[in-house]
Amino acid sequence: SSTLAHSEKLNEKNPCKRLVLYYHDIRFNGTNASNATSAATANHTKLGKFDHGMLVVFDDPMTTDNHLLSPAVARAQGFYFYDMKTTYNAWFSYTLIFNSSEYKGTLNVMGADMMGEETRDLSVVGGTGDFFMARGIATFRTDAVQGDYYFRLQMDIKLYECY
Amino acid sequence: SSTLAHSEKLNEKNPCKRLVLYYHDIRFNGTNASNATSAATANHTKLGKFDHGMLVVFDDPMTTDNHLLSPAVARAQGFYFYDMKTTYNAWFSYTLIFNSSEYKGTLNVMGADMMGEETRDLSVVGGTGDFFMARGIATFRTDAVQGDYYFRLQMDIKLYECY
Amino acid sequence: SSTLAHSEKLNEKNPCKRLVLYYHDIRFNGTNASNATSAATANHTKLGKFDHGMLVVFDDPMTTDNHLLSPAVARAQGFYFYDMKTTYNAWFSYTLIFNSSEYKGTLNVMGADMMGEETRDLSVVGGTGDFFMARGIATFRTDAVQGDYYFRLQMDIKLYECY
Repeated sequence: SSTLAHSEKLNEKNPCKRLVLYYHDIRFNGTNASNATSAATANHTKLGKFDHGMLVVFDDPMTTDNHLLSPAVARAQGFYFYDMKTTYNAWFSYTLIFNSSEYKGTLNVMGADMMGEETRDLSVVGGTGDFFMARGIATFRTDAVQGDYYFRLQMDIKLYECY
Repeated sequence: SSTLAHSEKLNEKNPCKRLVLYYHDIRFNGTNASNATSAATANHTKLGKFDHGMLVVFDDPMTTDNHLLSPAVARAQGFYFYDMKTTYNAWFSYTLIFNSSEYKGTLNVMGADMMGEETRDLSVVGGTGDFFMARGIATFRTDAVQGDYYFRLQMDIKLYECY
Repeated sequence: SSTLAHSEKLNEKNPCKRLVLYYHDIRFNGTNASNATSAATANHTKLGKFDHGMLVVFDDPMTTDNHLLSPAVARAQGFYFYDMKTTYNAWFSYTLIFNSSEYKGTLNVMGADMMGEETRDLSVVGGTGDFFMARGIATFRTDAVQGDYYFRLQMDIKLYECY
């Protein structure tokens, strides 16, 4: 059938491209403007005690290792917010912007960041430039949380549609 | 041609998977924290009288029938906001999270909820886990509106790309 | 391999459909409610001087030429926000809604609007109705900025998956 034409084409273990990058988020706390890469534009609601509704806009560096001060190979621009009343849990939508000798182009990502899970999968829903029309999966793993204002995620980006 | 390779493969009447689920949204009103599943994190603007700009973050149960207290077979986590000055009209972006014996994985959805229409189609733009790389259509139908703080949508989710 | 099945199918120069439209955004300033098509629902943060974090919800007309008062052939409903501390830079997610004799249906778009670039590419991540399951690229070009409350973008929408 027409839909079977789409079945069994893609193999979760066989991405056509893979990039493992680290995302560094330093949230503005009123005094760290020179270092901050994000800030909350909507405060948490009064539903629960886990920052439900806090909406953070970011322009964060992406590095190939887990050092904050390593050269950024891409930027992540977008937002996340916390969405549960009983625990910390987030939701992301953002663009990875590459402008290096290796890659020029973008990847667009969205999905739930179920922070209680060791890893969680979001969707790469499109791409441009060197990532023209790409799709795939971005697997998040929390790599570090330091205080209230810095956290680091490993993003294991696997593309299954490459053109 | 290359683009014809993509034509005529998918048939709107022939999804490779279909799930009909009900979305229950109980908005926080200041006193219903134990029942509430969502809360407004940005208040409406002063443009019109239809809550333009009100942004609601939710973690809502999805059930297989239209009873609020039926077992949830998935969660919907994400946000909606109202966007018109002349009537109620909304826009959604969210993740359906399945963690049951039947399905484990997520579906990511976005699009306009033209509330004045009997049904409206949003895009399923990606999936993970059992829904690896899925795409499709989520058709909304308003099933109930009770007072200012509860509404229920039927979401008829039809996937056309299944792997 | 399975992934090669997806390679070399799409050609950036050969969209299966192309629409060049103009997006007009008139932001509410407190006194222009009759003309305004958008309003800020979250104010800018204090991170930098470039409206970082300002979140604008819109229901904007789309025209086929660059005249604000030309007949709208579609609406764009969604949001943008500014996300950099060192310059103006935005991020968009929205739905193009067509309801004309020519087209009925929607296209869902998301991505970074790197305002400092002459053109920038966002992703068309899904479609409905006449644009059933479409994917592609929306290329933005700033066509006009007038004062603080009106700007116009050319959106060159190229679809590479048409069904």
